[in-house]
Amino acid sequence: MAPRKEVFEGVEWRIRVAADGSSEALVPATGLARKAWLGLKGLISGFALKVRMFVKKAWDVGTNDPRKVIHCIKVGLALAIVSVFYFMRPLYDGVGGNAMWAVMTVVVVFEPTVGATLYKCFNRVLGTFLAGFLAVGVHWVASQSGERVEPFVVGASVFLLASAATFSRLIPSVKSRFDYGALIFMLTFSFVAVSGYRVDKLFELAHHRISTIIIGSSLCILVIMLVCPIWSGQELHSLIVRNMDKLADSLDGCVTQYFYQSGEGTNSKEEATDNKLQGYKCVLSSKASEESMANFGSWEPSHGQFNFRHPWKQYLKIGASMRSCAYCIEALNSCIKSENQAAKLIKQHLGSGCLKVSSSSSNVIRELAETVKTMKKKSSTTDLLAEEMKSAVQGLQNDLKTIPHLLNPSAKPGNKTLETACSEATTPTVTLMELVPVVTLASILIEISGRIEALVDAVEELAKLADFGINDDKSKHSKMTDKTVSDAKKQTEGTMKALQRV
Amino acid sequence: MAPRKEVFEGVEWRIRVAADGSSEALVPATGLARKAWLGLKGLISGFALKVRMFVKKAWDVGTNDPRKVIHCIKVGLALAIVSVFYFMRPLYDGVGGNAMWAVMTVVVVFEPTVGATLYKCFNRVLGTFLAGFLAVGVHWVASQSGERVEPFVVGASVFLLASAATFSRLIPSVKSRFDYGALIFMLTFSFVAVSGYRVDKLFELAHHRISTIIIGSSLCILVIMLVCPIWSGQELHSLIVRNMDKLADSLDGCVTQYFYQSGEGTNSKEEATDNKLQGYKCVLSSKASEESMANFGSWEPSHGQFNFRHPWKQYLKIGASMRSCAYCIEALNSCIKSENQAAKLIKQHLGSGCLKVSSSSSNVIRELAETVKTMKKKSSTTDLLAEEMKSAVQGLQNDLKTIPHLLNPSAKPGNKTLETACSEATTPTVTLMELVPVVTLASILIEISGRIEALVDAVEELAKLADFGINDDKSKHSKMTDKTVSDAKKQTEGTMKALQRV
Repeated sequence: MAPRKEVFEGVEWRIRVAADGSSEALVPATGLARKAWLGLKGLISGFALKVRMFVKKAWDVGTNDPRKVIHCIKVGLALAIVSVFYFMRPLYDGVGGNAMWAVMTVVVVFEPTVGATLYKCFNRVLGTFLAGFLAVGVHWVASQSGERVEPFVVGASVFLLASAATFSRLIPSVKSRFDYGALIFMLTFSFVAVSGYRVDKLFELAHHRISTIIIGSSLCILVIMLVCPIWSGQELHSLIVRNMDKLADSLDGCVTQYFYQSGEGTNSKEEATDNKLQGYKCVLSSKASEESMANFGSWEPSHGQFNFRHPWKQYLKIGASMRSCAYCIEALNSCIKSENQAAKLIKQHLGSGCLKVSSSSSNVIRELAETVKTMKKKSSTTDLLAEEMKSAVQGLQNDLKTIPHLLNPSAKPGNKTLETACSEATTPTVTLMELVPVVTLASILIEISGRIEALVDAVEELAKLADFGINDDKSKHSKMTDKTVSDAKKQTEGTMKALQRV
Repeated sequence: MAPRKEVFEGVEWRIRVAADGSSEALVPATGLARKAWLGLKGLISGFALKVRMFVKKAWDVGTNDPRKVIHCIKVGLALAIVSVFYFMRPLYDGVGGNAMWAVMTVVVVFEPTVGATLYKCFNRVLGTFLAGFLAVGVHWVASQSGERVEPFVVGASVFLLASAATFSRLIPSVKSRFDYGALIFMLTFSFVAVSGYRVDKLFELAHHRISTIIIGSSLCILVIMLVCPIWSGQELHSLIVRNMDKLADSLDGCVTQYFYQSGEGTNSKEEATDNKLQGYKCVLSSKASEESMANFGSWEPSHGQFNFRHPWKQYLKIGASMRSCAYCIEALNSCIKSENQAAKLIKQHLGSGCLKVSSSSSNVIRELAETVKTMKKKSSTTDLLAEEMKSAVQGLQNDLKTIPHLLNPSAKPGNKTLETACSEATTPTVTLMELVPVVTLASILIEISGRIEALVDAVEELAKLADFGINDDKSKHSKMTDKTVSDAKKQTEGTMKALQRV
């Protein structure tokens, strides 16, 4: 070993070997310079890794929703166009060298959706108008009151109006519609009123500010509405439909998984199911975005299937109704993950009833999603499916009523099949602790079906308010109805067969 | 009757009498002018009513939270102070006549809380700096490339950088910290780069913009931090504590109301209880405000009991944990309002167990609220109360296990009291439908207690991260412990006694 060591005279390598035999690090100990270099290298590679991660994240944002990239290009385009006011002398002189306000307007007013942009444009123009007129008036009063008093009059008016405008922004009804307008009011008023002390042609200043802001706003509205427009209302509409489907999938998946749990299941399938099960969480967390979309939607003109006064507020009610279902699904989930294991006998006894309720409930939700999506009046399918759900609930309640016979076989059974089930069971008395999870699940399911009825009402109200058309393509419609109902039946049957195998 | 009628020759009064005999309206029919006057009067009075309603609402906003009024005064004050830059010649000349940017900065940067203001100030200054330097650089490159190419170079750079900045605002990690900074970057870059085409002293322009923005920002920071400051962090802290108390009240009230429901109850008391019961809804809807407060809180310097790097993110975890409890309380509420009436016997049998679990659970939550409020390490009281909760859950589970004996009295009972209860019951077999609501309630209660354990862990983690102090005032502490525990016992005993009366 000694002669070999001499070979490594110049650089000594320290090799730390971990318990599992893998080498952890190779660090030559040759003075500060090398250490510093390695440290720097580590820092750089760490930074490079972070940058790579960031770029990957940014790339994901872009690929997940290409419309976001289009939005960015639109902003760049609008700004490049408004820059022409600087580059062309007649335009520049036309606005008295105040072209920068048009540029500023484009930057602050351009939002991803048409509704948000219209809201900001309208508020900006209105706030500027009001404040401009008021400021010119205040300046006139101040200038009449003598040079020494003037700053105090202007200062006091700024103080009072700024306080009042700020206060108005704290009142909910004003905040939801005119928050940005109040901000612009303050901005313009302070700017014009105070400038009046130094600028001679105040009226011209106010005039230029208003016209440049109108120019910037108009350009924004043109670009946002002509180049691949994204409508808040349409987004809200799609979100509600998407969330309904997610809710139906969660409800279905949740109950199916519970009654399959004891059976076999491949891992990849489980993962996909897990994703579906978590869908209801999107419903829980979408309140804020629904509200802002509904607010911006009300600023949008007629587009696609939607009129100017489309009842966006009703979508919020549908959203709230869906959330109340999602709360129950959350409770359902907890009851599925419960430590208390249910007795097989009870699971078999209530399984088909629970599955019927969950599949018929989710079918109702899917049909409602279809109603909202196609904007056709509540079809007979909905009534049919709702009736089916009600009868499934009734069936489940009957199943619940017959349970005591499983607990107490001496009492007279009202059902022949049950009698067979009882005689098949080797232990005639099931403990209540084995019963609790399934009973809880069943009663939450019944509660959910009640809340779905409220959801049906909310969608019906929307159909009335928005004057949904009647589905006149009867052949297509009846085909769809048949398909939906037969699908639902097939699904339930399949699940029940699988259950019997379990 | 005829001579009497002649007296009313000039004006004929139409009196519509409603079915119940009350006169509905008195409308004289004397031509258009009077009708128009009345219509106008109606309009005015309607408008006046609306204004009065609005003023009332505004007044409520002010009286409910006087700090909002103070905020408004602060904004007015800051704006009045910054106006001095216009009124004093040396100051005005010092910033090259660009004092309006300082005014604008104050208007757009001033937010109700210190954290939000600091976030905006920092972002505005940083964005302006970066964009200013870049824009001067781009202008230099453009000016070197000849007069004809210059607009295209500038236009292309504006297009590219504006698109990139807009895109960065869509990446969540950037959006949460630098959204406003990216906006200001776009604003300043377009403004300075494009102005370069018309303004000769570009460097001076950038310099003035930066210095006025720094002046405005500094003034805002001074005013917001010196005049009655409102800290985002403190607000978040208080919100979490308040929500914990509300959660505890809801849980307690919900279960107590259920087992008292059949008893007598005065209306005024019921109303107060209803308000308490709905408290958990605040927890459900406070996610968005918690997130923004935690975000702004991280910008705040050390204040009050909080250090600069206080773990605000952990409050979000506590909030999420509380929400998961609140979902279950929502399900609990639905089960209380259920149509299926529970059997009195079962209610009596499980009542004390459920009340014990709910009161011990809510005591744990209240103790956690106290821990967070006082920022003292988890005391032995918490452990004690958590143990009590666990044993209450165990007790409830035992109660559930003995129910089958109520359903099937022939099986041997494991509990003497139960035997008595069974013999007291005239109908020995309770139907399962009468059992379902209470069993569901009990199992949701057990689930809630599990989630409260997660909440205890989250608060413990906060105590570790924030390095909570140790409660050294032992005598006071032990007194408090005794008081809390004895209070809890008294409450449970009282409720149980009342239950027996029912």
